[in-house]
Amino acid sequence: MAHTIAILGGTGALGSGLAIRWARAGHRIIIGSRTLEKAEEAVTALKAQSPETAAEAMDNAGAAAAGDIVVLTVPYAHQLATLEGVKGSLTGKIVIDVTVPLQPPKVGTVQLPEGGSAAAAAQALLGEEVFVVSAFQNIAADLLQDPERVIECDVLVSGNKKDARQKVIELAAEAGMRGWHAGPIANSAAAEALTSILIQINRQGEISHAGIKIVGQEVH
Amino acid sequence: MAHTIAILGGTGALGSGLAIRWARAGHRIIIGSRTLEKAEEAVTALKAQSPETAAEAMDNAGAAAAGDIVVLTVPYAHQLATLEGVKGSLTGKIVIDVTVPLQPPKVGTVQLPEGGSAAAAAQALLGEEVFVVSAFQNIAADLLQDPERVIECDVLVSGNKKDARQKVIELAAEAGMRGWHAGPIANSAAAEALTSILIQINRQGEISHAGIKIVGQEVH
Repeated sequence: MAHTIAILGGTGALGSGLAIRWARAGHRIIIGSRTLEKAEEAVTALKAQSPETAAEAMDNAGAAAAGDIVVLTVPYAHQLATLEGVKGSLTGKIVIDVTVPLQPPKVGTVQLPEGGSAAAAAQALLGEEVFVVSAFQNIAADLLQDPERVIECDVLVSGNKKDARQKVIELAAEAGMRGWHAGPIANSAAAEALTSILIQINRQGEISHAGIKIVGQEVH
Repeated sequence: MAHTIAILGGTGALGSGLAIRWARAGHRIIIGSRTLEKAEEAVTALKAQSPETAAEAMDNAGAAAAGDIVVLTVPYAHQLATLEGVKGSLTGKIVIDVTVPLQPPKVGTVQLPEGGSAAAAAQALLGEEVFVVSAFQNIAADLLQDPERVIECDVLVSGNKKDARQKVIELAAEAGMRGWHAGPIANSAAAEALTSILIQINRQGEISHAGIKIVGQEVH
């Protein structure tokens, strides 16, 4: 099923990478930003990088209203303020929160927010009529830009509503990634914390673009 | 280098599995428990399971004093009390903390303790003269019992002292597992939280013994 996917803050590498891959999968993409002008710049940059990607520009309020799925890819410092500004347009929708609560300069140290998780804070702000799903925190964003590139890193998908998680697992698959049901939104803490560990591992220089893969024994 | 490894609470599956593998690697193993009698029972059970494993029984205080590396494998509810009881014997030693702060009955939901991590709480209790290293939270313990069994799951190794982490990475390798420097002890939060996600994944029934593997691109 084709969706209208609004990517708020779609000016970063993760937002543009997801836009490129989801557009190819047949979804309508809206890039949202704080102003229409910034969103238009982002769409121009996206088309320069990936001419075949169709995307529309709107300010965040317009994008949140137009999307039936809303993706939040703004920096942690703007996460809750951005959601607060568009809250009224989110009722009944899936909000995919990719926020990692990194606190510069110590981005290699886990510093989880009060309450344990940025995504749980978003869910608390928005209320249970909005289906917050946490995902994509552990993906090296630059790998997404080339839509042919295989992504080895799995996606931990947390959220209080199973149907909403399932939809995000399907969207992850359409973007070339394996998603896993990871439990309620509180469990986003694991994915958020893992990012600092992946940063540590990248710094050691043995591998780059570190990610995680779920392993185990197949059950027959 | 051969160590004397004291496993406090070595009566569970993780403790006995590590004992079997480290004994084979040539280390002297002491099984500690609340009483000498319980430790002796644990050693008897261990030998019934693995006749070639040499291990001595001591109460926790004796074990902590005798070991040059101390491993804490007691349930979360007893973690800090056990450390408090043997604190005086730990100065200058590596303490490997495998504690996962699961809070039954909701073991599939991340419920990190005040301060963010059980291992960080242990480090705070013991002070910086004790080198707490967090590891092995994500290993399906029953896989360790058969020393020939290959473990696919990697080990995230957190701790404030790099030398101490490196030693635990070597011990993980001797037990058949790949360890990774995961940063300071605060980063144990990621490994502790991940366990609830692995429980969620196991429950879904597609795979069992779920674990994580670090993936990435080799740097040449």
